[in-house]
Amino acid sequence: MTPPPVPILLTPGPLTTSERTRAAMLTDWGSWDGSFNALTARVCDALVAIANGTGSHACVPLQGSGTFAVEAAIGTFVPRAGKVLVCVNGAYGKRLARICEALGRDHAVHETADDVPTTPDAVDRLLAADPAITHVGLIHCETSTGILNPLAAIAEVVARHGRGLIIDAMSSFGALPIDARRIPFEALIAASGKCLEGVPGMGFVIARTEALLASAGNSASLALDLRDQHLYMQRTGQWRFTPPTHVVAALHEALVQYDEEGGLPARHARYAENCAVLIAGMARLGLRSFLPPGIQAPIIVTFHAPRDGRYRFTEFYEAVRRKGFILYPGKLTELETFRVGCIGSVGPAEMERAVAAVAETFRALNIETI
Amino acid sequence: MTPPPVPILLTPGPLTTSERTRAAMLTDWGSWDGSFNALTARVCDALVAIANGTGSHACVPLQGSGTFAVEAAIGTFVPRAGKVLVCVNGAYGKRLARICEALGRDHAVHETADDVPTTPDAVDRLLAADPAITHVGLIHCETSTGILNPLAAIAEVVARHGRGLIIDAMSSFGALPIDARRIPFEALIAASGKCLEGVPGMGFVIARTEALLASAGNSASLALDLRDQHLYMQRTGQWRFTPPTHVVAALHEALVQYDEEGGLPARHARYAENCAVLIAGMARLGLRSFLPPGIQAPIIVTFHAPRDGRYRFTEFYEAVRRKGFILYPGKLTELETFRVGCIGSVGPAEMERAVAAVAETFRALNIETI
Ligand SMILES: Cc1ncc(COP(=O)(O)O)c(C=O)c1O
Ligand SMILES: Cc1ncc(COP(=O)(O)O)c(C=O)c1O
Repeated sequence: MTPPPVPILLTPGPLTTSERTRAAMLTDWGSWDGSFNALTARVCDALVAIANGTGSHACVPLQGSGTFAVEAAIGTFVPRAGKVLVCVNGAYGKRLARICEALGRDHAVHETADDVPTTPDAVDRLLAADPAITHVGLIHCETSTGILNPLAAIAEVVARHGRGLIIDAMSSFGALPIDARRIPFEALIAASGKCLEGVPGMGFVIARTEALLASAGNSASLALDLRDQHLYMQRTGQWRFTPPTHVVAALHEALVQYDEEGGLPARHARYAENCAVLIAGMARLGLRSFLPPGIQAPIIVTFHAPRDGRYRFTEFYEAVRRKGFILYPGKLTELETFRVGCIGSVGPAEMERAVAAVAETFRALNIETI
Repeated sequence: MTPPPVPILLTPGPLTTSERTRAAMLTDWGSWDGSFNALTARVCDALVAIANGTGSHACVPLQGSGTFAVEAAIGTFVPRAGKVLVCVNGAYGKRLARICEALGRDHAVHETADDVPTTPDAVDRLLAADPAITHVGLIHCETSTGILNPLAAIAEVVARHGRGLIIDAMSSFGALPIDARRIPFEALIAASGKCLEGVPGMGFVIARTEALLASAGNSASLALDLRDQHLYMQRTGQWRFTPPTHVVAALHEALVQYDEEGGLPARHARYAENCAVLIAGMARLGLRSFLPPGIQAPIIVTFHAPRDGRYRFTEFYEAVRRKGFILYPGKLTELETFRVGCIGSVGPAEMERAVAAVAETFRALNIETI
């Protein structure tokens, strides 16, 4: 059976990985074996280094999707009597609040519109007004739209108030700089299948080691207890429970390529160019992006759908897919939009071809875009 | 860089997978795409069919390792005011109790020795004595030793008392028959990387649909709420959170091969032969297995280590590894043992070669085995 031609994923994870990364999954690994432990250790060291946290921070990998790691971070770092200020401007902020709700952690929600970043001033005011708040939960790049929240300024405010910061950096880590030496946080969460260009299947939390060790007794879960996972790994070099061995091997290979490419600055530059090419190309077709450039992260772009009454997302999606590109639906409730990811093992040439595929599709479907 | 020669894993998951299964990971899949939804649906249908639960039962896949699915099952099916009778004769039974502890679910532990199966009589007596018990947690094949617990007879007792049964069938599902038409249970838990011969990275729970739907309000987790996962999948065909796409694709391919091989009877027969060849071969070397044949599952075999004072597990392990086989350490605290798995994409020929490798190793290390 010959495999079907593989479309390019312009989605925010799972995304397009390199052949080398996928080929790293052609080997089976024993989870007790020294060679696999070494793989895990190298991956963790590399992830801490990307955050510039070597010495002060630890990487705790966790089986499952990114959300599992977010829930694990809330459950591990927020004491049972703690309170989280959740900054919301999209679906992932809402999910963070839902996690607090499920875990029974007290929380307050500070919500702004989908195209309005959280401001340091608002956080300052809210923390001053409520001394019960122990932690702030912030989505760095809110993938629902692609909006970038001002992490550095907010982190400074949170630190000034002596509270702990938990950053959901799922869709930004590895592409947008987050320097643990300058940005104080307790925990930063990301996953294998995003800007590091691995395959999905594991999340990880970069944690201030002191905060991690001080978190005993917080978690009401065995599987999602990051402190327990960390201590076991420190002691044995192994994961507590069966690791997703092939996913770890793929991430390891993806991190080797990350270094070869030139690390974060190079990854950032490629994604920024992808994003610029995409937005410019779509603009030529008359398609406007939802966010103003100043708050647009080079990760994923939300476009207004054409106003033409004949436009149907699924028809558009299927037609572009037949041309070799997988796009993503919008996540806004009020506005008809679609999204295009700028991340993954793709460059400006692929973005140009994607724009051409979109143009041809609208022409073929007889849909006016201007 | 040429990859190092790949040893054969004789471990109870991760295990040796077929080339075809690993090659299925060479494609990237969009998690929103119809083709991937179809893959998920086919996998779930196949898993329910293996349990003969079509119509009455649903398969809820879950990101993460098997333990995540066990914790999800306890949290989803046991009401907050429920109580679990946990049957323990090894490490995985103990882990089940630890999960109840972490989740704050009341529980009682019924522990027998590592080589003593739980009896239906004991369960009968304990359920009669404690009407507060709502659920029984049972490990089908306790992988710590390879002991088989008498599932059918225990399930009948649990049903007669009107309590719910939660089966950890992690290392038996797909190889040992569990027929949902004859064996009443609320939830059965297994994972991708065991007897189905996929790669690790997802667990799943086969649940009585009625019990699943009735479980609203039980779970104190978002990520591990199986009912929520199920309802979302029913509505959208998609996973709630990013699925481990490549792991799912590998499991799909592994299930195709499972069918080609002849389904459960063929898989069972091959593992039984692997087990017989292994035990006979090791016996020729003077190495005795820990369990009597009547309670030995054809999944993994615990062997007494040689009494020779020069024996060191890690030295033995490394030497056998150099010969191409990865074994597993023992999990008994009182006795010096090691374990050899009978599962994975291996047959009697590989078991014979493994025995030969063990024999040569002991000869080379000058260790007497008789
Ligand atoms: C900002 C953000 N947070 C959380 C998640 C959830 O991750 P997952 O879907 O892997 O559970 C995502 C996924 O795209 C994300 O972009
Ligand atoms: C019977 C049993 N239960 C639970 C588990 C835990 O599964 P995992 O290591 O995937 O978390 C295992 C793993 O081998 C097992 O054999």
